[in-house]
Amino acid sequence: MGGRTRLDMDVRRQQLVEVGRELFAKRPYDEVWVEEIASAAGVSRGLLYHYFPTKRDFFVEVVRAQVDHIAELTAPDLSKPPLEGLRETLDAYLRYVEENAQGYISIHRAGIGSDAEIRAILEESYARDVDRILQRITAGGAAPAIVRVAVRGWLAFTIGTVIDWIEHPTIERDELRELLVQAMKGCVTAAMEVEPGTKLPGIQDDAGVGAEAAR
Amino acid sequence: MGGRTRLDMDVRRQQLVEVGRELFAKRPYDEVWVEEIASAAGVSRGLLYHYFPTKRDFFVEVVRAQVDHIAELTAPDLSKPPLEGLRETLDAYLRYVEENAQGYISIHRAGIGSDAEIRAILEESYARDVDRILQRITAGGAAPAIVRVAVRGWLAFTIGTVIDWIEHPTIERDELRELLVQAMKGCVTAAMEVEPGTKLPGIQDDAGVGAEAAR
Repeated sequence: MGGRTRLDMDVRRQQLVEVGRELFAKRPYDEVWVEEIASAAGVSRGLLYHYFPTKRDFFVEVVRAQVDHIAELTAPDLSKPPLEGLRETLDAYLRYVEENAQGYISIHRAGIGSDAEIRAILEESYARDVDRILQRITAGGAAPAIVRVAVRGWLAFTIGTVIDWIEHPTIERDELRELLVQAMKGCVTAAMEVEPGTKLPGIQDDAGVGAEAAR
Repeated sequence: MGGRTRLDMDVRRQQLVEVGRELFAKRPYDEVWVEEIASAAGVSRGLLYHYFPTKRDFFVEVVRAQVDHIAELTAPDLSKPPLEGLRETLDAYLRYVEENAQGYISIHRAGIGSDAEIRAILEESYARDVDRILQRITAGGAAPAIVRVAVRGWLAFTIGTVIDWIEHPTIERDELRELLVQAMKGCVTAAMEVEPGTKLPGIQDDAGVGAEAAR
């Protein structure tokens, strides 16, 4: 009676990670102090260290939570055609990024962003994103290697332009979203130009993708 | 007479950086030791530290030299149409990356890759690459913001797919090169789809880019 149960500990852990997600969303990793995290969570430094031995360990969990959250947020709506579904997904994604700009940059670029463990979390999430997209555009069929490379490249295009847009917002969010949708068409079409026999039933009839390669 | 002149020092510095470039080309940053660099260069550790106070300082210079080298290697041939010039540039680029795979990954991703100073060197080189490309595709005219974003995105596409290709070579170098050329068309076309009035004289008549947006 009264002792901390495993469930209590899991809940507390989640609460701490949630506090971290809010703090790291607005400010860079190096500018957030352990004292501040503990204070924002209403716990002692000692308790925070009990759950997470180092600030880096804590940040790794925050990144994992953030990546999971984005994965949920961007789960494809299978009732829509791929490009229309992509447009809605990107809309949710960009709104999230706007609210969590600094966290996005921290993960995808600055400082601790190249940490091996964080890198592994990101690689896993990229692989899942690529698989999700390939499933849609191949309508569940096999994807040629070059199409996979093109989709992986499109993800890099997306992250690169989003970071650039956070720091230099020279275009509107809706313009960026449309650029990303059209770039998906452009990148997949590029793969089909290199391997003309490629069949992508999920996307080929959608908004004219591959019309050029099919000629 | 006999003292070390400024010129001697510059030459020695360059020699050391060149040795570093070879070592870091093949192995990750964390696996190359200062002792090893000094030994490969035939100098004492003390002399190496005289020129570069820390391993990181040394690596920053190696990155700067590498970025300058790639810039020279990929200088556009203005006598060729943009996409044909791009194809040749990418060919040189990918051959260089093959020879310097680990160095490429070290700079663009792992460990120290997110160092603020290295990040600044890279941002500068990306900006120069984007300017070079925009000059070609606008034939020297003004580029709308969205075209700049698309070209910046294409650079991210390129770096992302190249890193992926080094680690998972699922397609041939020539296929990757063609994918990158076609993706440039696709990304620029995407920008023109979002802003249909865009005129890009340098590329529009080259291999049908923008034919869709022009309809």
